Amino acid sequence: MIIVMKTGATEAQIQGVIAEIHKAGLREHLSRGAELTLIGAIGDEDKLDAAHLEILPGVARVNRITKPYKIVSRDTHPAGSVIRVRGIPIGGEQIQVIGGPCSVETPEQMALSAQAVAAAGCRMMRGGAFKPRTSPYAFQGLGVQGLEYLQQSARQHNLPIVTELMDVRMLDTFMEYDVDVIQIGARNMQNFDLLKEVGRVNKPVILKRGLSATVSEWLMSAEYIAAGGNHNIIFCERGIRTFETAYRNVLDVTAIPVLKRETHLPVIVDPSHAGGKAWMVPALAQAAVAAGADGLLIEMHPNPCEAWCDADQALTPEELNALMKTLGAIATAVGRSL
Amino acid sequence: MIIVMKTGATEAQIQGVIAEIHKAGLREHLSRGAELTLIGAIGDEDKLDAAHLEILPGVARVNRITKPYKIVSRDTHPAGSVIRVRGIPIGGEQIQVIGGPCSVETPEQMALSAQAVAAAGCRMMRGGAFKPRTSPYAFQGLGVQGLEYLQQSARQHNLPIVTELMDVRMLDTFMEYDVDVIQIGARNMQNFDLLKEVGRVNKPVILKRGLSATVSEWLMSAEYIAAGGNHNIIFCERGIRTFETAYRNVLDVTAIPVLKRETHLPVIVDPSHAGGKAWMVPALAQAAVAAGADGLLIEMHPNPCEAWCDADQALTPEELNALMKTLGAIATAVGRSL
Amino acid sequence: MIIVMKTGATEAQIQGVIAEIHKAGLREHLSRGAELTLIGAIGDEDKLDAAHLEILPGVARVNRITKPYKIVSRDTHPAGSVIRVRGIPIGGEQIQVIGGPCSVETPEQMALSAQAVAAAGCRMMRGGAFKPRTSPYAFQGLGVQGLEYLQQSARQHNLPIVTELMDVRMLDTFMEYDVDVIQIGARNMQNFDLLKEVGRVNKPVILKRGLSATVSEWLMSAEYIAAGGNHNIIFCERGIRTFETAYRNVLDVTAIPVLKRETHLPVIVDPSHAGGKAWMVPALAQAAVAAGADGLLIEMHPNPCEAWCDADQALTPEELNALMKTLGAIATAVGRSL
Amino acid sequence: MIIVMKTGATEAQIQGVIAEIHKAGLREHLSRGAELTLIGAIGDEDKLDAAHLEILPGVARVNRITKPYKIVSRDTHPAGSVIRVRGIPIGGEQIQVIGGPCSVETPEQMALSAQAVAAAGCRMMRGGAFKPRTSPYAFQGLGVQGLEYLQQSARQHNLPIVTELMDVRMLDTFMEYDVDVIQIGARNMQNFDLLKEVGRVNKPVILKRGLSATVSEWLMSAEYIAAGGNHNIIFCERGIRTFETAYRNVLDVTAIPVLKRETHLPVIVDPSHAGGKAWMVPALAQAAVAAGADGLLIEMHPNPCEAWCDADQALTPEELNALMKTLGAIATAVGRSL
Repeated sequence: MIIVMKTGATEAQIQGVIAEIHKAGLREHLSRGAELTLIGAIGDEDKLDAAHLEILPGVARVNRITKPYKIVSRDTHPAGSVIRVRGIPIGGEQIQVIGGPCSVETPEQMALSAQAVAAAGCRMMRGGAFKPRTSPYAFQGLGVQGLEYLQQSARQHNLPIVTELMDVRMLDTFMEYDVDVIQIGARNMQNFDLLKEVGRVNKPVILKRGLSATVSEWLMSAEYIAAGGNHNIIFCERGIRTFETAYRNVLDVTAIPVLKRETHLPVIVDPSHAGGKAWMVPALAQAAVAAGADGLLIEMHPNPCEAWCDADQALTPEELNALMKTLGAIATAVGRSL
Repeated sequence: MIIVMKTGATEAQIQGVIAEIHKAGLREHLSRGAELTLIGAIGDEDKLDAAHLEILPGVARVNRITKPYKIVSRDTHPAGSVIRVRGIPIGGEQIQVIGGPCSVETPEQMALSAQAVAAAGCRMMRGGAFKPRTSPYAFQGLGVQGLEYLQQSARQHNLPIVTELMDVRMLDTFMEYDVDVIQIGARNMQNFDLLKEVGRVNKPVILKRGLSATVSEWLMSAEYIAAGGNHNIIFCERGIRTFETAYRNVLDVTAIPVLKRETHLPVIVDPSHAGGKAWMVPALAQAAVAAGADGLLIEMHPNPCEAWCDADQALTPEELNALMKTLGAIATAVGRSL
Repeated sequence: MIIVMKTGATEAQIQGVIAEIHKAGLREHLSRGAELTLIGAIGDEDKLDAAHLEILPGVARVNRITKPYKIVSRDTHPAGSVIRVRGIPIGGEQIQVIGGPCSVETPEQMALSAQAVAAAGCRMMRGGAFKPRTSPYAFQGLGVQGLEYLQQSARQHNLPIVTELMDVRMLDTFMEYDVDVIQIGARNMQNFDLLKEVGRVNKPVILKRGLSATVSEWLMSAEYIAAGGNHNIIFCERGIRTFETAYRNVLDVTAIPVLKRETHLPVIVDPSHAGGKAWMVPALAQAAVAAGADGLLIEMHPNPCEAWCDADQALTPEELNALMKTLGAIATAVGRSL
Repeated sequence: MIIVMKTGATEAQIQGVIAEIHKAGLREHLSRGAELTLIGAIGDEDKLDAAHLEILPGVARVNRITKPYKIVSRDTHPAGSVIRVRGIPIGGEQIQVIGGPCSVETPEQMALSAQAVAAAGCRMMRGGAFKPRTSPYAFQGLGVQGLEYLQQSARQHNLPIVTELMDVRMLDTFMEYDVDVIQIGARNMQNFDLLKEVGRVNKPVILKRGLSATVSEWLMSAEYIAAGGNHNIIFCERGIRTFETAYRNVLDVTAIPVLKRETHLPVIVDPSHAGGKAWMVPALAQAAVAAGADGLLIEMHPNPCEAWCDADQALTPEELNALMKTLGAIATAVGRSL
């Protein structure tokens, strides 16, 4: 940490800062210039609180040197991590597309979905059993029965399943139903108790970015999971909130290369929730792969007009098929495969 | 709901929309113009899904007429609601200032805090026992022991207490320790399972606005609580996330008159978290009262330099005292009292 | 325009709205339901002011039906427009990459730049002679001399030039120096007098998106140019301002398919200004092409370490070369060419 | 400037940075620690370009120490500046309310406006002759004739006038018509050529904040004007663009105390454009005065239902009268007068 003293800071004020540094068990490195007095705090920066130092008399500004995230940082693990879900690699040369409906509705809908997902060449399946809805009066998901339908349909095609966990009290049920990948939704990215709990199990976690979370906050939320012992974390960019109202969210493709540089963990993208309209999905999915994403979460419904929620953002099976072909060509163009 | 058909929509497409309206149990009101065909859906709008209708062939746009929130809406309760916390009214002519430290640290710190809060003329006390922190390595609060210290110190001065609930599994403990007002933090504004649970108890709830929640989403989150049977909800504006980096959040004073118009429930403001610096608190607190807020949540610490978290945003007891005087004068200027 | 009346609006209030519609020369279409009274205004919607109608007694809401932009709308010109710059097409099957330094510095730098741009396979060149800088004390560009250096170097390789116009008083000079494409910068997207002036000349205009301009405002700014008679407009997405501080702007790839649907005019992307760092440029450029962009504006400097401004966002000639190869492969993957 | 070297930076890299510092005419202050090597650049920081230094090999980060704005900074002028407009002080103990219609329409409308403004106790008048409109098809203002009507009506009541300048070519006309205060609109906050020109005249300038301008950018735009020799600058907060759609802009009251700390120049607020609805204006105006604003720009129209633009945000003369009384009481509460 570097503490910049105000011009004219007194000797007593400088010594006051040094005393605080010592109190935290760090050493100081004093750099006294004619116009500029800097104090470096040498040692474990996490033991010092920048906000604390900033209100000491004579202090102008405090800057951290090291990053606040450790386990998820690429500094501690320079090679990229590959996370395996029942043998399927996420984060390597091969790009994974996870397809399926927004919410689980009926056994028939799920059977058709699983078939279409597998036929399109996807190796994993998604489906929501517990749905975070803005309104208490909207369909909240089938719950446990939804897990059952999802698992049944996916097993037919040997597709590992991804589904969202909203309530910490349902984690045991998720383990019983052998959910393959636990999804933490955007609205729960900073539900710290939920993060701590999924940090204690041995299941891959897809961590969606909060509606207006910075990349740094997102990394810190992953660090919560990792600190509990679960390092199988997959970041999922799903669009951020901005002033623009012509589409639901703004897909932040810049986050892809930035995350790939900051963390060794895989990064996937959800183009369906980002744009909010099915006709935008191909362009966004293509952009994501071209920008270096390790995978995609794509909504597909056997009959979008009949879907029970987010009807207008689901692709048809035919549209998914066509998109997979273009994505394959782009993957090749950037030196990867689909 | 008004369904605007595309220019040139066919008769079959129009009938398709009408069929959907009937299926949901509503009636249609067809308005066929030379250039403009509109279909009104008459009945309970919540039974129709706008997203569903929007993807039907021939549909250009769908607009809701009624608001999606009911119980919290001023339409259903034109007079303002006054919520009483051990006899102290929130939402009436009198403005309430809830003071106290960011986090509970020690019995001594709490004793000094309670004394200063009471001496300044505040009638309620705040203090965090469970702290939502961006980093897993930061101080997470004293937990249950914090509740104890908070309750002990506040009782000495007959101050009802306000404290944050983060985890649904702690609700029973909050009831045992007789927390007077449950605070739901910004990061949990859309933690729907938590909202449902506090909707089932009979305790006032302070619902903080999410970091980038719209007023409409905020009202819907309150509706989650209200739908469970608990109508004792207090909105708390605490600043929103924007592009500006010169201060932590942008306090959205416009939300005050807008909420007062949309809902019958009280609206308070947290100027401490909004700005993030103690020296900004007086200006923001004054602005909030002048704009019509029913109360304030203000951080005060007996010794800010020693505070364990958010040190730089806490007022000293002296600063709180001085601020209360100015707030009293502004309250009078806008026809209220402090 | 659809005027939704408040529940319980009186007959006099309804007639008041109809009178306003007539005053503007439009006809009304009254749709009176049991719970819902709607008034459609039939005719040229631009003659009515929604804000005006909204404050009339009894009016609940007013919704526009038609779009406020006409000439630039795809409705009026369903096929895509191809704009030709000295024979080079922008907006067709071939994607154009416009390369060059941020600012014109010296004849030597420009000679090296032009050579590298041409060698990499770009068909047009950029370079700033007038620079919009946040600080009055920063380098403001070489001015007219810069135009000269730019034109001289580009002519050697038969590259049409693109450069930014900031001041309406310099337009004649731009015409004298035969600038091929006039760039309007983000900060001038709503400098309406400048837009009107470039609407009067017969030169292609690249219209950059404002820092936080909505797609709708951007289309309206293009409409300003088009209304003056100049329809040779190229939209350029360059990133928008959000809460994220890890990178300069957030490149909004969703704007590409949305604009392509709303307007017949070409859409290009500036990945250099968006991210603000050279190492981000390849990922963003690739995403843009994959999402359907018609071209790119890319900063390249023969020696970035010596650049006079925005040094850290310029590619080296070698990096540009490598990027062009990947872009070519992606262009093929999406059915286009480079 | 402080240059933080990467861990493991070589001696050659350190010397490379020092060489750049010397080249710019500054001296270095090297602070070499076991884990941390810092280089301070001592001297005129503006001669160094942080972006330049950041791309040098071995450099981790570069932090400015001094602020990039000089003349407008409170550091260079600790006492607040009072700007006098025909004897009326802006920035002192007395708060100024500048009232008037959004746009100048007719001599009759202006006569009624001036009378109402004066009767309410305002000491200055506003009115737009040149209007920045999003659409080229909307009313663009009466132009020079508008200046005439404004000046005629205001003179009757000895009210100095404030009006917006959009085009640099109209500045001479503004001087001829003896406009008392030149307003630079939000969309022109970074129209640097316009800023330079108003920096050369001797007239007070109201500089509105850009739609999504940071406080720092806003101060730099003021520095452009000041650098030309005109130090009579008044900042005007008018709401910023955010994700919220329930109101036009979010009035940023936090900017008031922050600006008052950063600059010696006066700060006023425009509550009419911020909220966009007349019924929001009183709450916002009251908040602004309570937060320390030096004045207000308030839209008033003798007959809002007949206004030619922004009809729904203008107060009636009666509403202005009532508001002035409340503002007077709040001014007193915060130790000022109206």
